[in-house]
Amino acid sequence: MKEEIQEIGEKARKAARLLAALDTEKKNEGLNAMADELTANAAKIEAENEKDIHNAKNENLDAALIDRLTLDADRVKLMADGLRDIVSLGDPVGEIYEETTRPTGIRVARMRIPIGVIGIIYESRPNVTADTSALCLKTGNAVILRGGKEAFNSNRVIAAILRSALEKVGITPDAVQFIDTTDREAVLHMLKMDKNIDIIIPRGGPGLIKFVSENSTIPVIKHDAGLCHVYIDEGADYNMARDITINSKCQRPGVCNAAETLLIHSSWVDNVPRLLDELEKAGVEIRACVRTYEIYSHAKPATENDWYAEYLALILAVKIVDSMEEAIDHIEKYGSHHTETIVTPSPERGEAFIKAVDSSAVMVNASTRFNDGGEFGLGAEMGISTQKLHCRGPMGLKELTTYKFVVHGQGQIRN
Amino acid sequence: MKEEIQEIGEKARKAARLLAALDTEKKNEGLNAMADELTANAAKIEAENEKDIHNAKNENLDAALIDRLTLDADRVKLMADGLRDIVSLGDPVGEIYEETTRPTGIRVARMRIPIGVIGIIYESRPNVTADTSALCLKTGNAVILRGGKEAFNSNRVIAAILRSALEKVGITPDAVQFIDTTDREAVLHMLKMDKNIDIIIPRGGPGLIKFVSENSTIPVIKHDAGLCHVYIDEGADYNMARDITINSKCQRPGVCNAAETLLIHSSWVDNVPRLLDELEKAGVEIRACVRTYEIYSHAKPATENDWYAEYLALILAVKIVDSMEEAIDHIEKYGSHHTETIVTPSPERGEAFIKAVDSSAVMVNASTRFNDGGEFGLGAEMGISTQKLHCRGPMGLKELTTYKFVVHGQGQIRN
Repeated sequence: MKEEIQEIGEKARKAARLLAALDTEKKNEGLNAMADELTANAAKIEAENEKDIHNAKNENLDAALIDRLTLDADRVKLMADGLRDIVSLGDPVGEIYEETTRPTGIRVARMRIPIGVIGIIYESRPNVTADTSALCLKTGNAVILRGGKEAFNSNRVIAAILRSALEKVGITPDAVQFIDTTDREAVLHMLKMDKNIDIIIPRGGPGLIKFVSENSTIPVIKHDAGLCHVYIDEGADYNMARDITINSKCQRPGVCNAAETLLIHSSWVDNVPRLLDELEKAGVEIRACVRTYEIYSHAKPATENDWYAEYLALILAVKIVDSMEEAIDHIEKYGSHHTETIVTPSPERGEAFIKAVDSSAVMVNASTRFNDGGEFGLGAEMGISTQKLHCRGPMGLKELTTYKFVVHGQGQIRN
Repeated sequence: MKEEIQEIGEKARKAARLLAALDTEKKNEGLNAMADELTANAAKIEAENEKDIHNAKNENLDAALIDRLTLDADRVKLMADGLRDIVSLGDPVGEIYEETTRPTGIRVARMRIPIGVIGIIYESRPNVTADTSALCLKTGNAVILRGGKEAFNSNRVIAAILRSALEKVGITPDAVQFIDTTDREAVLHMLKMDKNIDIIIPRGGPGLIKFVSENSTIPVIKHDAGLCHVYIDEGADYNMARDITINSKCQRPGVCNAAETLLIHSSWVDNVPRLLDELEKAGVEIRACVRTYEIYSHAKPATENDWYAEYLALILAVKIVDSMEEAIDHIEKYGSHHTETIVTPSPERGEAFIKAVDSSAVMVNASTRFNDGGEFGLGAEMGISTQKLHCRGPMGLKELTTYKFVVHGQGQIRN
């Protein structure tokens, strides 16, 4: 097993050197070929996907998970369309920036380049296989894919189709490497292969993230889950506060930028019953702090665990605070530094909130659901980084690159 | 032990929140106070340093190491001057960039912010204690310092002086945390404290780097050693090639951006004996490849190990190659992706070399010794990163920051 994983790493490293030299046009040709081959082979993908669905049903996985797993012709077309969208995005590779001439006469600049080999370990839907392969190709990176066992057959056939598409246009198929086993030992070997993998991106639940962080000798960019807060400040407009709260909680409750806790300034307390009624009408179960419970006693009382809970469901913890500082302290103590928003009529208080809150995105008068590569104008994304190193928040094409210093001299030596 | 390290982490985290809110003027006041207190307490530093020197002599450490350890009044003054230099550098914190207004009407930008808490584990000279504390203060980061045991007494007194300087100007002394034990167990606890340390920077030999990479659950920025190459291309000017080779090898052989291997295009072979004579005259011992040995037989023959060797001494491995591609393959196989330079009269071949070589700095007609924060115009540096994530090459002030997305809306929700 170790030898096979090593070999995959070596092939990926070799491929990365070739990919780094490709021009944008060639990479786009590869992306279009990938999209074409996916739609041409939709029936094949569906057949393999059916095996995964069959296994999932046998193991009594829940209906929502089975739905996320399922690929039909429409979803394959969406996957292919996603790749064509990446064609239209600008290629960050090769950009020269921060150029200066130093007193010694040397000319110093940074050149944006691919990272090299990216290992991605994911539990999510099979379209991640196509999306990440495409983002890596566009940025000149080789990718090593290790998907979840639930989607194994789907992921394998998609990877094979992508590889054959690359081969057809004369790009090395080794740009896309697929770990062809569900054995967890393979992941351990991947995580130690620091010579041939430059970064590891885990996307999945806390168990996966923890396992990867603890075992990887390769730099990791975590795509962890989010415990996001909406804070309604004093004087907030009722309708705006309601719309942002409901949208942040309900528009897609199962994703990382959905809100989990609502903090409300005590001066706004008269509006609370009405707001909670509207939330309940939208299907949300309320977990109330002591003060909220006093004025809204048919809610379920919140326990300490509720402030730490990432429900990913239509449940919202609600707490009344006496000041913005108390709200910020709560966010600092219980939050996951993902996305927080303040609803406030005061630009000054908005700026104070932005300055004090340490999250990947801090918002004033907007839904937490906007923390997303597309919404931020980055185009497609690998996911949302929840760490501070290298990139934070949506990880788009630029974030899949690094740089080298390039120096032009005329024979200079150092004194 | 674990509890003490935990407590240090918690104090650092609290300090980081306060530091993030300081303006540039206040941080500069702290830096000047640090410099003043160091010079005012030079005698105290020398007394503690003598204990380290005494221990080093008892343990028969070599003279070069003892010299690097030694602090006298002049060196303390240099240390203080270094801090004052950091006052004059621009403060990257708070910068707003990549601002756009999206079709939804939300205004999205990135705001440069401190990373938070930086753990540094170093084996080097005691001035690193002052330098890194100052760089972290300037960027609003708290620092946790873990120095080598050889400099333990010196590091401890310097950290105490820096802390009292901060206290005098009303900045929390917890901004600078010192691990007050040489027990290796303390490092292990540090490396697992991902809640309260945001990044770990190891600076030292391969043993330290390996230990940190294998045990850290916190993102690591390695400051590994360098195996740098000079490649003399066809048609290279003799004097330029000689000057760059000698400077890259000899100007300071013990540092990471000194050259270790010289690659020479076979068409340049007539110049080789003369060049090697001049290198020997400069005190360099030559390790010759088979073809070099044929024309310079009094050199020592190189073995396979020589191509992997980071001598950090006046020794140079020399190899004749038939093409630039062969040189690049050699660099890819044996190099450490730190710094490589080509000496060539051809701008086209220079660009080809830059494009193909994947190192933190790639140079044309300049000494490898230029890969340095000061020489590149970044000002002072934490060291030279040898990984691709977050920052590569000299790690200056900007590289000690991260960003958050800031979003301004007028009540927008997502459809």
